[in-house]
Amino acid sequence: MATAGKDTTDASGGPGNTATPAIRHSKPPVNHHRAPRAATYSTSILPFERSPNGNILAAFCRAAYWTQGRAVWGALTASGDTKHCYKMDHARRGRAIIINNETFHHDLYLGQRTGTDRDAENMESLLSELGFDITARKNCTAAEMKSMLVEAARESQGDADCFVCVILSHGDDGAVYGTDESVKVEDLVAPIKACKSLAGKPKLFFIQACRGKFVDGGVEVVDSKGKHGQDDEEEMESDEVAVQTIPVEADFLMAYSVAQGYYSWRNREQGSWFVQAVVKVVRDNWRRMDLLTMMTRVSHKVAYDFESNVPSNRFLHMKKQIPCITSMLTKDLYFTPKV
Amino acid sequence: MATAGKDTTDASGGPGNTATPAIRHSKPPVNHHRAPRAATYSTSILPFERSPNGNILAAFCRAAYWTQGRAVWGALTASGDTKHCYKMDHARRGRAIIINNETFHHDLYLGQRTGTDRDAENMESLLSELGFDITARKNCTAAEMKSMLVEAARESQGDADCFVCVILSHGDDGAVYGTDESVKVEDLVAPIKACKSLAGKPKLFFIQACRGKFVDGGVEVVDSKGKHGQDDEEEMESDEVAVQTIPVEADFLMAYSVAQGYYSWRNREQGSWFVQAVVKVVRDNWRRMDLLTMMTRVSHKVAYDFESNVPSNRFLHMKKQIPCITSMLTKDLYFTPKV
Repeated sequence: MATAGKDTTDASGGPGNTATPAIRHSKPPVNHHRAPRAATYSTSILPFERSPNGNILAAFCRAAYWTQGRAVWGALTASGDTKHCYKMDHARRGRAIIINNETFHHDLYLGQRTGTDRDAENMESLLSELGFDITARKNCTAAEMKSMLVEAARESQGDADCFVCVILSHGDDGAVYGTDESVKVEDLVAPIKACKSLAGKPKLFFIQACRGKFVDGGVEVVDSKGKHGQDDEEEMESDEVAVQTIPVEADFLMAYSVAQGYYSWRNREQGSWFVQAVVKVVRDNWRRMDLLTMMTRVSHKVAYDFESNVPSNRFLHMKKQIPCITSMLTKDLYFTPKV
Repeated sequence: MATAGKDTTDASGGPGNTATPAIRHSKPPVNHHRAPRAATYSTSILPFERSPNGNILAAFCRAAYWTQGRAVWGALTASGDTKHCYKMDHARRGRAIIINNETFHHDLYLGQRTGTDRDAENMESLLSELGFDITARKNCTAAEMKSMLVEAARESQGDADCFVCVILSHGDDGAVYGTDESVKVEDLVAPIKACKSLAGKPKLFFIQACRGKFVDGGVEVVDSKGKHGQDDEEEMESDEVAVQTIPVEADFLMAYSVAQGYYSWRNREQGSWFVQAVVKVVRDNWRRMDLLTMMTRVSHKVAYDFESNVPSNRFLHMKKQIPCITSMLTKDLYFTPKV
């Protein structure tokens, strides 16, 4: 059942936000969504993320190199030479499903997942920005959840870049909860796995749910940073039932909010730590950074910027969380902007 | 038990090898191991991997930008400003343990793992190139395996960049096999998890072992490439007992040779597909590419370049494999060359 208490987060950014390096502003300004396709490719793929800064010659070369890159990347992509990146210039970005379960049948003894609407809204907004066609449903039964995935797999995906499924719910051993009963994650993934028109394309699952009863007390590290806004106490819950990693095959990414065996934390006002971090990091970086690199930043943000604040319960107070990214991707994934 | 048969691989490179993009040769030549530290940083971190090529102005700018970057990156690193990369300039690279189990007690009914010596030699050579202090042992009992990890955790790691453990064996549900009995992966990881001087540092486990009884029949994809050397038939085995993903915390990377539930393939001459791919991809790219990106290339190589060749057994013939990379890393990991 849900555990209420106090918590501190820096969810909305503020000092210490690490998601937007200064170098971003030194690139020539471009409207990614309105520029012609040859130009938009370069903005998302060119590798400026880790560029040095603060030198005029370097800045000049970056600008010139970038300008060259716009055209060259368009040509490279057209010729299929970007073999280590997924092809992300299909007519459609693809289908994104958001399953947002807040209340459950009383026989299940599962707490209301207050704050999950914030997660759902934020993910819908982000996925919309990325160009997905979104199907969002609230409080689905297990059967309804399964039928949503079956329906998505039946839809023709030939002209789609990829597929996304976001599940916000309680979890259990290898399963997540519908409002009436649990459903195996494997059963949700199966129709997508069998979808021929998604073969070779990235299939991404983001799962916000607990995966066990352990809480992570954390260890002190040399480069650990202070948590921000510690005076801003709020109520906190955890999605406390376990879900396990499932077998998946090539081109699947399973992004779990937490390591197997552990509590996953959710703030009643701001939503879960994991979804807060995903939305912030991906929104700030998707035009120029690949998905796995962004997910490492998400893990960093959750691990370093969040800590539970439940002073009434010593067992749950000042605990940490680390997401768990299981990748079977075979190429880098850049969400190339759609024209 | 082991399953013998025929197989085809392109393990030693040849046509279709995708690990060394042409752009690599357009960079100014540098001896990474002998150049001063400020220079060596830039070669591993500068983001040229996905650079366009074939244009004189672009090439000039790349060269100039790169030259600038050498000094700038040295300064940035010295000031600790590379906050999204693990600090990899400690005095030592760190300890790497290789556990290579080939033969097992007859009561276990586990086949001899022919070809595993090739894996062990290749990994030892690679890790030595990366600068690790290596402890390699063959045919360890479960107790010996545990004591190796305990010993490594007792060793002072304060001046080390990271820790690596390579396990080559049969696997079982959540466990791998010593020569006498199985040992939980969790029990092997526990002492490393508790090692204070490794907190905040990357802890990498590479596990070559089966994780189930399923074989992956594969699906056809548009950009699938032909397999090379299909006439070069060889004997093939699989490490057919299952091992599960275990709970891990921040800064762990668990690189499994195969998805949970599936066979993991090993060639009797060339070693396992997974270790072959790890050695090839990391050797070709570690000076300039981060670990997660390299592991995606490893997955690509295993998924696209290998296929089992066991014509005597239809169930095992022409099967595929996809590695499973579970990351709790919080930063990008570049194996910055040691001076």
